[in-house]
Amino acid sequence: MVVPALIERKRDGGALTAEEWRDLVFAYSRDAVPDYQMSALLMAIVWRGLTAGELNALADAMLDSGDRLHWDGLGKPLVDKHSTGGVGDKTSLLLAPMLAACGVAVPMMSGRGLGHTGGTLDKLEAIPGFRTGLSLRETEAQVRRIGCAMIGQTPEIAPADKRLYALRDVTATVESIPLISASIMSKKLAEGLDALVLDVKTGSGAFLPDEAQALELARTMIGLGQAHGCRTVALLTAMDRPLGRACGNALEVEESIAGLSGEGPDDLMEVTCALGAEMLLAAGLARDVGDARARLEETISSGLAREKFGELIEAQGGNRAILDDPAALPQADVIEIFTAPRDGIVSRVEPRRIGRAIIELGGGRQKVDDIVDPAVGFVITARPGDRVSAGEPIASIHARTAEGAERAASALSAAIEIGEQGSAAPLVSHRVTADGVQRL
Amino acid sequence: MVVPALIERKRDGGALTAEEWRDLVFAYSRDAVPDYQMSALLMAIVWRGLTAGELNALADAMLDSGDRLHWDGLGKPLVDKHSTGGVGDKTSLLLAPMLAACGVAVPMMSGRGLGHTGGTLDKLEAIPGFRTGLSLRETEAQVRRIGCAMIGQTPEIAPADKRLYALRDVTATVESIPLISASIMSKKLAEGLDALVLDVKTGSGAFLPDEAQALELARTMIGLGQAHGCRTVALLTAMDRPLGRACGNALEVEESIAGLSGEGPDDLMEVTCALGAEMLLAAGLARDVGDARARLEETISSGLAREKFGELIEAQGGNRAILDDPAALPQADVIEIFTAPRDGIVSRVEPRRIGRAIIELGGGRQKVDDIVDPAVGFVITARPGDRVSAGEPIASIHARTAEGAERAASALSAAIEIGEQGSAAPLVSHRVTADGVQRL
Repeated sequence: MVVPALIERKRDGGALTAEEWRDLVFAYSRDAVPDYQMSALLMAIVWRGLTAGELNALADAMLDSGDRLHWDGLGKPLVDKHSTGGVGDKTSLLLAPMLAACGVAVPMMSGRGLGHTGGTLDKLEAIPGFRTGLSLRETEAQVRRIGCAMIGQTPEIAPADKRLYALRDVTATVESIPLISASIMSKKLAEGLDALVLDVKTGSGAFLPDEAQALELARTMIGLGQAHGCRTVALLTAMDRPLGRACGNALEVEESIAGLSGEGPDDLMEVTCALGAEMLLAAGLARDVGDARARLEETISSGLAREKFGELIEAQGGNRAILDDPAALPQADVIEIFTAPRDGIVSRVEPRRIGRAIIELGGGRQKVDDIVDPAVGFVITARPGDRVSAGEPIASIHARTAEGAERAASALSAAIEIGEQGSAAPLVSHRVTADGVQRL
Repeated sequence: MVVPALIERKRDGGALTAEEWRDLVFAYSRDAVPDYQMSALLMAIVWRGLTAGELNALADAMLDSGDRLHWDGLGKPLVDKHSTGGVGDKTSLLLAPMLAACGVAVPMMSGRGLGHTGGTLDKLEAIPGFRTGLSLRETEAQVRRIGCAMIGQTPEIAPADKRLYALRDVTATVESIPLISASIMSKKLAEGLDALVLDVKTGSGAFLPDEAQALELARTMIGLGQAHGCRTVALLTAMDRPLGRACGNALEVEESIAGLSGEGPDDLMEVTCALGAEMLLAAGLARDVGDARARLEETISSGLAREKFGELIEAQGGNRAILDDPAALPQADVIEIFTAPRDGIVSRVEPRRIGRAIIELGGGRQKVDDIVDPAVGFVITARPGDRVSAGEPIASIHARTAEGAERAASALSAAIEIGEQGSAAPLVSHRVTADGVQRL
């Protein structure tokens, strides 16, 4: 394998063979290919793309660089969900227990906050004692025992992806649909899933705001999943405003518990149920969407999903008392009410500004090793389209200090626009399967 | 300076400011920017190109990374020539003494063999004792004293270019006209020239075989030269066959001496005089091409150029006895005559095959640190278009061993095609100046 010749071929629009991808990723994992060659190749991929065959081979090579979850004799359909990331998106915290309560095994592997978007692991770690760093064997045992686990990417899963991602992050080679797809799918496929439901966000707060690009990403990941025998379906969901009211780690856990108790905000429950219905259908545990939704609602009205969340928390070392006593979650020292500055209609609640304001409050990371303050964030009750009056409370600010709250109020003023009219994109706009795209 | 943001801008087709290029090259020179970021940026440049402003800024930054030659009170026009590289091209060895004999100061900075092409430094080092590693101060002193010097790129000249070039070489980012231009011109501009004549090769043996690309390279380098107050002119010359008869380091020195003695092959002398005339015109030391050519021929017929070459050899520690006694040059142990395998007309003498065969004989490098055998090579008397008879000697092979000679003969059989007809491209096809392209 002559690496410059491989880079040259990709640079000139050619394709590498499956064997070349395997050898390259193997050599890179063993420091036999230096970062400077890999980053030049990555930029050539951003430029030229990858064929479907190359994409499969690259994902396989990354998958094979590590270990997988094993499920012999599980006797249950194994399904996970992946989101491309948003603000206020706590659907994972609801879906894992809801699906487990329906008899689906959910080995949910999640990430941390990235850029302005929140991360499921950071949210879970707002629960006192909650451990996300389970080993693969612990994860398997827990899923067999209680039907779900929520963990981080372990060092054994796709280590080549981990290393490539770190390199892409500092070489402006993140923004490539095939590279994003291979990265996500190599980890998801390591879970040994029967099916995967993708939540691809669109709108100003999404990683790929453009709908056409979001569809392309959905199609690419679906192609990869299907090629590996994992039934893969995607929904495009709105991230032109935060999902739900709570934005911030502990606040989102609290809202998730409300959701599992039948008291979640409509938008959050709508997206959760849409994704959950796809998971149930893909698992073969529902006749149709109506049946699936009814089963999911039953897990809430019966209290089974809430109880499952308690089991999950307990199994991973967390304090399940938070289910009944939200005060057991980390609390901000300063809570201030934010009021509408004037009469009008809420025209926008800009998720990127909200996400960045949370980071500013200490609830996210500027650098990889920053420590996250779980207590801070916002509860924004005003939604696009709502009519508000000057002085009416429309949000609460949860901060560590009065100065932090003041800066956050100013960020909120910029994020929440009040004008003459307002509307929001449909919450779930497209359903994408291997057969095509359906506008909903 | 946030490097990933700069890479991203170039990746997306934008431009960096002059200040950003300066800071980037400065930081890279000081290891404050890692190779893996630079190689990603280089690939983005191969993809997106550079604006004229960026190109100037990059060349300036590379130039400013090192020292320059200083010529206060020299009182002579200072002119150099640069070739993009060929097989059998020994024009530099003739031009430096010929131009010095005309009163032009020639601080010629050359390179080593690269790929299948030969290098002036390797040729000079075939002369016993010849030192190409002069310091900048030694070079200045010698040019002031005898009118010319022939040296390698010293560590003080454009060190950033040296490092970037090494990185490009292993990351498939060599093939970019702006990067090639900035690399060449940053070194040439460090010579403090009044004028520069470029010999841009075209045809199958050229670095850029395609004529349109060769013209683009010529225009780009001319733009850079002119922007730096260095009058720059280019000739496009044929590299669809070797230039002259001798190919191999000592053999080419011998042919150069023949040329300086009025006994050079026509094609070599034609290209040498065409380039030399441009140098004289650019130096302002000739009225027109006819006058320039007459002056150049006079340096040969008078013996002045030959004498100047002797002075040059002596000044740089070489044995000037080679002028009168070619046997003082390294000699091959095995010399074999290669004969035409059949009657016909020579249709091709493929320079890449010849160049690679010289490397195979040990006369070039497979790796950067290979030691070059100066004695080996070919003298190919058959030219495209020549009628030959089976068994007629058409070349001699100079090898270290009989096995080497045998392999070389087989390479020569493949390189020299004999068919029904043959023709060669015009030796000098285009003249390119800041005003435009003239087909000759």
